[in-house]
Amino acid sequence: MQHTENEEQKFNVRKLEISDKGKGFIELLQQLSVCDSVSNDEFEHRFQELSSLGEDHVICVIEDEVSGKIVATGSVFIEKKFLRNCGKVGHIEDVVVDSGIRGKQLGKKIINFLTDHAHSIGCYKVILDCSLDNKVFYEKCGFKQKEVQMVRYFI
Amino acid sequence: MQHTENEEQKFNVRKLEISDKGKGFIELLQQLSVCDSVSNDEFEHRFQELSSLGEDHVICVIEDEVSGKIVATGSVFIEKKFLRNCGKVGHIEDVVVDSGIRGKQLGKKIINFLTDHAHSIGCYKVILDCSLDNKVFYEKCGFKQKEVQMVRYFI
Repeated sequence: MQHTENEEQKFNVRKLEISDKGKGFIELLQQLSVCDSVSNDEFEHRFQELSSLGEDHVICVIEDEVSGKIVATGSVFIEKKFLRNCGKVGHIEDVVVDSGIRGKQLGKKIINFLTDHAHSIGCYKVILDCSLDNKVFYEKCGFKQKEVQMVRYFI
Repeated sequence: MQHTENEEQKFNVRKLEISDKGKGFIELLQQLSVCDSVSNDEFEHRFQELSSLGEDHVICVIEDEVSGKIVATGSVFIEKKFLRNCGKVGHIEDVVVDSGIRGKQLGKKIINFLTDHAHSIGCYKVILDCSLDNKVFYEKCGFKQKEVQMVRYFI
């Protein structure tokens, strides 16, 4: 099957696979924050650590079927509390869409996937931190502003 | 040894123990947010789940040696990322000090304990979400405001 520029591409969300390192996953993260190159060993070690958490830590990606590159990603991990009658909270982190691909709602697909995951395993809420610039996007995804994020860096 | 009201009490921070349920731990959490009574079975189950995460999820408490009650608590869990060269981030949650005990820097002791823990196991930063009312307290603990917290409730 040949792809043409006008053909409607499917952008499906799936879980991160170990082979995604070779498809630009780390380079995509570098669009979000500081991330030097990660060796294959480091990647596999961290991948296995996270995989061992099962449904409690999920990283999803969208692969561009034409270029074979990872063009969007996000993660959610599940915090288990005593509060809220031993409730669970989903924390969404590290959401990024390739700056070269806009207007295809990839960010929304990622957020919906992560939110649905948190909901499906019984979280009572899902939270994330974002810049003021991105607030409107998350409001369109059904989120509301609640608190402020405080940070203390060690390096 | 007799305790008097004027005696200087030590308020040491330690990790949560399973017997702390009988010392008012859940009642303390109820000062922070919604939390119905938790059965002993539910408590033990969640306690074991969190214990299995080892250093990656720590809940600390301060016990009032006179009353035998838990008067302050907080938790930190460690998120493992690919970002920041496979870095780690400490997430501080559920910090509460008994409303009847003020001016003894218990909140600061809790935050220092959790922050030190995150630092000691190699996190590059520690983050938390708080109300604007509590921002000054966290600034005194060395934190700075960075982003805004967004939330989506399922219930």
